[in-house]
Amino acid sequence: MLSVAMDKVREAAERSKEASYRLQSIGSGTRDEALAAIAERLKKQRKEIAAANRQDMARSEKAGLASPLLTRLKYDEQKIDDSIRSIEALIDQEDPIGKILDRVELDKGLILEKVASPIGVIAVIFESRPDALVQISTLCIKSGNAVILKGGSEAELTNRILAMTINEAIVSVDKSFKDAVQLLSTREEVKKLLALNDLVDLVIPRGSNELVRSIQEDTRIPVLGHAAGICHTYVDSDADVNMAVEVCHDAKCQYPAVCNAMETLLVHKDIAAEFLPRMAQKYRKADVELRGDDRTLKHIKAKKASPKDWSTEYNDLILSIKIVDSLDDAIVHINKYGSHHTDAIITRSEADAGKFMRRVDSASVLWNCSTRFADGYRYGLGAEVGISTNKTHARGPVGLEGLVIYKYRLKGKGHVVADYTGKNAKRFTHRRLR
Amino acid sequence: MLSVAMDKVREAAERSKEASYRLQSIGSGTRDEALAAIAERLKKQRKEIAAANRQDMARSEKAGLASPLLTRLKYDEQKIDDSIRSIEALIDQEDPIGKILDRVELDKGLILEKVASPIGVIAVIFESRPDALVQISTLCIKSGNAVILKGGSEAELTNRILAMTINEAIVSVDKSFKDAVQLLSTREEVKKLLALNDLVDLVIPRGSNELVRSIQEDTRIPVLGHAAGICHTYVDSDADVNMAVEVCHDAKCQYPAVCNAMETLLVHKDIAAEFLPRMAQKYRKADVELRGDDRTLKHIKAKKASPKDWSTEYNDLILSIKIVDSLDDAIVHINKYGSHHTDAIITRSEADAGKFMRRVDSASVLWNCSTRFADGYRYGLGAEVGISTNKTHARGPVGLEGLVIYKYRLKGKGHVVADYTGKNAKRFTHRRLR
Repeated sequence: MLSVAMDKVREAAERSKEASYRLQSIGSGTRDEALAAIAERLKKQRKEIAAANRQDMARSEKAGLASPLLTRLKYDEQKIDDSIRSIEALIDQEDPIGKILDRVELDKGLILEKVASPIGVIAVIFESRPDALVQISTLCIKSGNAVILKGGSEAELTNRILAMTINEAIVSVDKSFKDAVQLLSTREEVKKLLALNDLVDLVIPRGSNELVRSIQEDTRIPVLGHAAGICHTYVDSDADVNMAVEVCHDAKCQYPAVCNAMETLLVHKDIAAEFLPRMAQKYRKADVELRGDDRTLKHIKAKKASPKDWSTEYNDLILSIKIVDSLDDAIVHINKYGSHHTDAIITRSEADAGKFMRRVDSASVLWNCSTRFADGYRYGLGAEVGISTNKTHARGPVGLEGLVIYKYRLKGKGHVVADYTGKNAKRFTHRRLR
Repeated sequence: MLSVAMDKVREAAERSKEASYRLQSIGSGTRDEALAAIAERLKKQRKEIAAANRQDMARSEKAGLASPLLTRLKYDEQKIDDSIRSIEALIDQEDPIGKILDRVELDKGLILEKVASPIGVIAVIFESRPDALVQISTLCIKSGNAVILKGGSEAELTNRILAMTINEAIVSVDKSFKDAVQLLSTREEVKKLLALNDLVDLVIPRGSNELVRSIQEDTRIPVLGHAAGICHTYVDSDADVNMAVEVCHDAKCQYPAVCNAMETLLVHKDIAAEFLPRMAQKYRKADVELRGDDRTLKHIKAKKASPKDWSTEYNDLILSIKIVDSLDDAIVHINKYGSHHTDAIITRSEADAGKFMRRVDSASVLWNCSTRFADGYRYGLGAEVGISTNKTHARGPVGLEGLVIYKYRLKGKGHVVADYTGKNAKRFTHRRLR
């Protein structure tokens, strides 16, 4: 029984692989047509999709799903319209595939090209939000990748009708899109999928830190994402205090539930007496719970921070505060306790800012601005695939380029390597052409 | 006892991590000075290094090490000079770090830069060849990465004196280089190192397919490399037969022991009668053992190929040959049995070549030239880190860029996200600057 199911998942992944080979041949125009067809069908099917979603909502409410999760699950006609607008914007984005990244003449008539290419088969595991299904499928189609999706069971009916709608749309444009978007339905299937590192090229988890972590621990396929967002702001001795107060308030309070919100505030000892009382006053007005180390407590009223606080992502109106002796100490603290996601320094000193931005080993390093800026939309990337704390392939807010790799294309006229070895060896010209 | 050793490996990796943070601050000039110091010390220590290597050779010969492995183990004064020349060439290469890859104004005074950065800690596991130790350490220093090395036990004395020489050289230039190059000595330590995915950012195996495969199966750290090189040449119906004979001869015979040599020849049925007898004659002169499918055997004398042949990397003067009905069949065969490394088509038809190069899912796809061209030196990449069949980060022959990632640097003047939301939201300009 179990092995039958295994075969089913493998067969699905094999069909995805086949589709991914066909997709490599589909031009930009056809891919954009497929996206337009999806937008068209979503418009036509709005009512059916919203109705399916209401069924999911009712069932999940009855089952006692927590209210923030219910909010995420909701996919009404307004949200469908948002998805349609995103698809239209995606159509307008430049084709990420086929671009010649580099062009070198190795010798007369022997031309090497480095060409942007789809990765192949992307597995996307997401929780709740059905809009993620539409977003990620369309990103994959834009970039010529096949995608295998698995959403949360609470969104089952919504996801099923969405996957069906998308499939009908793309296959109506070109039969080569068959199997380009597939939907798995059970958690057991995901486990099996994550074992297929010969067929799946990249996994993108979209959801809680726990989801990301469990996937990272469960697969040898590259995982694009981040398991935590423990972001810092360091207020240097040389900071503009007014600016520091405003920026630190924004970084914590503007939207505390997200990964790029600040969780720990580091303060240089020489500025603490001036800065901390004013900062604390502003935080108290915003109902932020403050947890400070011993030295912090000498300046402001706060709970005493425990060692655990330095590595906790609150995602809430809670902030840990620590006084440090130097820029170096701040950097050491961030590299040790942070999640290499986004960290900021507030200072007038260009030298300090430079050192901070070089030595802090994070995807985004910021100077005199709020950590909340670190996302794909604000960075101007267009569509956002996710935020990655990986050190290879794609780091930080990732746009379509995260779904793209390259291949080398070498065109000759009968060239053989033997001519370039031994006594009368021809020499390579290695002339950059672009 | 075991846990003590574990701690030792973890401590070494932690020291590497610390070093990697310091390295982010070391400028291009200092890194090149460190490389020059290594070259200098290798020159001075030539005799001692060669003597250590002779001891390794003698011990290994006595232990019955196979002769090709003994050849690889050999690191005499001539090979030391080769290493020194490579270091001098590396110094002349452009700095891969610090380059601004993209620069965007998000709004007035809020500037985003995407900056090429070192990856962090690279683990390199290699067999025999002590020159690999010098090559990969210097590549890591050039690109600002810390490296943890583990060589084969047969080269123990050579590796030890090389690591010591390199360390003395770099630390003499700048104390920040302390722990930037570390050497592990036992296989058990490697196993432990591969478990430290919180500290090691990338693993590069240099050696046999078995080594690469065992490492890929043993770690969740990204592995840069390829476990096999099953390369194909497809002779299309429209091929220039003279060209096909010459190119296929080169692809198999010019150096059969390497990963980019051809292992399987695919021939379109309509050209088989003309091409195969001439090709077979040329191969026989070069002592190539031919293994053909049933249809091939109707045209030439050869052993009968077994299904296993299609997925075998001979690395030897052996070739499997199969007749296919169409370009599509050739593509399906290559995507199914190949290793996504390097595959070539011989044809006069630009349309067929285009389809082949798009649909064959390999790191290098070639038209009318020998698979043997697929390597970093011939591609003009300068130093070669390895050849990768990965679909993320780096693919194909990989130069210094494989040791590089980027980070985002955002410089503001007190900018907060709250200003860009709500009713009177400011708008981002997203103006590309470069």
